[in-house]
Amino acid sequence: MIKTPYLLFLGDAPDQLAAKVAQGIKDWRPENAVGQFRMEGCKADVGLADMTLLEAKEAGAKTLVIGVANRGGVISQEWKKVLVMALEEGFDLASGLHNLLRDEPDLVAVAEATGQALHDVRVPEVEYPIANGKKRAGKRCLAVGTDCSVGKMYTALAMDAEMRERGLKSTFRATGQTGILITGDGVPLDAVIADFMAGSVEYLTPDNDSDHWDHIEGQGSLFHVSYSGVTMALIHGGQPDALILAHEPTREHMRGLPEYQQPSLEALRDMALSLAKVGNPDCQVVGISVNTQHMAEDSAKAYLAELEDSMGLPATDPYRFGAGKLVDALVAL
Amino acid sequence: MIKTPYLLFLGDAPDQLAAKVAQGIKDWRPENAVGQFRMEGCKADVGLADMTLLEAKEAGAKTLVIGVANRGGVISQEWKKVLVMALEEGFDLASGLHNLLRDEPDLVAVAEATGQALHDVRVPEVEYPIANGKKRAGKRCLAVGTDCSVGKMYTALAMDAEMRERGLKSTFRATGQTGILITGDGVPLDAVIADFMAGSVEYLTPDNDSDHWDHIEGQGSLFHVSYSGVTMALIHGGQPDALILAHEPTREHMRGLPEYQQPSLEALRDMALSLAKVGNPDCQVVGISVNTQHMAEDSAKAYLAELEDSMGLPATDPYRFGAGKLVDALVAL
Repeated sequence: MIKTPYLLFLGDAPDQLAAKVAQGIKDWRPENAVGQFRMEGCKADVGLADMTLLEAKEAGAKTLVIGVANRGGVISQEWKKVLVMALEEGFDLASGLHNLLRDEPDLVAVAEATGQALHDVRVPEVEYPIANGKKRAGKRCLAVGTDCSVGKMYTALAMDAEMRERGLKSTFRATGQTGILITGDGVPLDAVIADFMAGSVEYLTPDNDSDHWDHIEGQGSLFHVSYSGVTMALIHGGQPDALILAHEPTREHMRGLPEYQQPSLEALRDMALSLAKVGNPDCQVVGISVNTQHMAEDSAKAYLAELEDSMGLPATDPYRFGAGKLVDALVAL
Repeated sequence: MIKTPYLLFLGDAPDQLAAKVAQGIKDWRPENAVGQFRMEGCKADVGLADMTLLEAKEAGAKTLVIGVANRGGVISQEWKKVLVMALEEGFDLASGLHNLLRDEPDLVAVAEATGQALHDVRVPEVEYPIANGKKRAGKRCLAVGTDCSVGKMYTALAMDAEMRERGLKSTFRATGQTGILITGDGVPLDAVIADFMAGSVEYLTPDNDSDHWDHIEGQGSLFHVSYSGVTMALIHGGQPDALILAHEPTREHMRGLPEYQQPSLEALRDMALSLAKVGNPDCQVVGISVNTQHMAEDSAKAYLAELEDSMGLPATDPYRFGAGKLVDALVAL
């Protein structure tokens, strides 16, 4: 568990997109962030108060979270000036970068001297069990995609937010770096060893109140040959009661695989549901989440209406038009 | 790559079953084993000449392979007397035990001093790539099971042996500890990190002659919730041209999962083929491999005949009745 609240480190971000982890935290857990720290030349702004380390400390921040992608894949000497000072001031550090904090001897030395923690959320910190497949109390919802990066995390976050707004019992369960930094906890599933993948998802979504919903962050796609094994482990480890089909209609091919096309939503529905029923015979497909960011509003709405008609399921872009329809479908189960 | 031939270490095996790794090597790659080494009280015998270290050395052995499951999960002091002497005599050591050779400081020290290698085949020794899904030359066959441990490895080994006897181009591709020790090479798939599973299978089965068949060792089952992600990675990383359905008809429930029943062979066929077609649209299910070890010969033959009738596919127990039918089906593709 990463201590909250955070100060979000934007560093010398070359553009707004480079700060998307910080933006995700600000969008989905604003209560987790007291402010942002920007270095000279920073071109990103997530709309929080700019703070020095001392100001953030006074505002209660416990952890400096690296909310920015680094240039050239390394933690620069410029960054380190801030990171070392943050440790000295009593902050923990958290990062989802490939360049691990723990691989930097100077950061390790200062962290040890000051007694502060270094969290590399790409690396599992738990020895996960092998999945036992036992039925757990409580409800679970999982978004499965026609492709990678079609909005599965945002779907889960939006449904969780909507449920909590309605006073319903709900938890977002992170399975990737950004999700873990947003909530401060989770399983970095793509870094888990093969035999323990499904077990790590069981660990992440334990017994709960019978009217509580876990919204499990999806990963990969059953139709993406590079990562389908990870998706499979989510379906069997998560034992979902409800599946959401996630889609991005403007893709020309599967992400990173020019030779592969996305499946139809019908094919995704049939495949995912058959597999999910192995772990939970009562599983149902309850709705469709479409990432319409590359479509004009009129086209997006027309596309969603068409989908509802042809698939017989509620369809929305939860980020653009709200997750209400999907939550209605869950509640009706 | 582990240097062959081997001397097979049976240690103080409490019974014959404990030496099943050694038995597998003797059964499938007798040319890889010059003899067996048994300690006092050993209750196993794989039918090779008993040899001292020096005799094995003279017979050309390069590696002492631990072909036995250890008691209590630790490498005992009694074993170490032999293992250390083997290193001193110029043998490498190879092991598939959970208790890693490299975690024993005395073995590491002697290996370093003598310049000999310690092979822990449970631990990947390669940084595998992320799968790219590109079509590769050559043919690949994969057995998929209704459950774990139904004979997928033996099916692949038997088909490979039959093809080589017929003078056809064929390679067994190991994905588990026993398979790797049998052949001296392979990918320990259950120990690979999630994101690299499918890529490790692509790495294992590279471009080859157009009339060459890789027989990929299967793992887990699409219907076994603990390990289905590993099976999925084999199906998408392996891009099989041919699937064999593997089954053990006398199981009362899924291995290790008392609440779960095996699927029908029809359900396995439909699910595995749909998923395999994502990576290779030309994939076909070509035959059925049944593990009949718990059935009388008459019942086994009647069962196989019935299956051939109902499924319209050749069916055999390749270990008991030969793999000829399955190889005929491959050749006919």
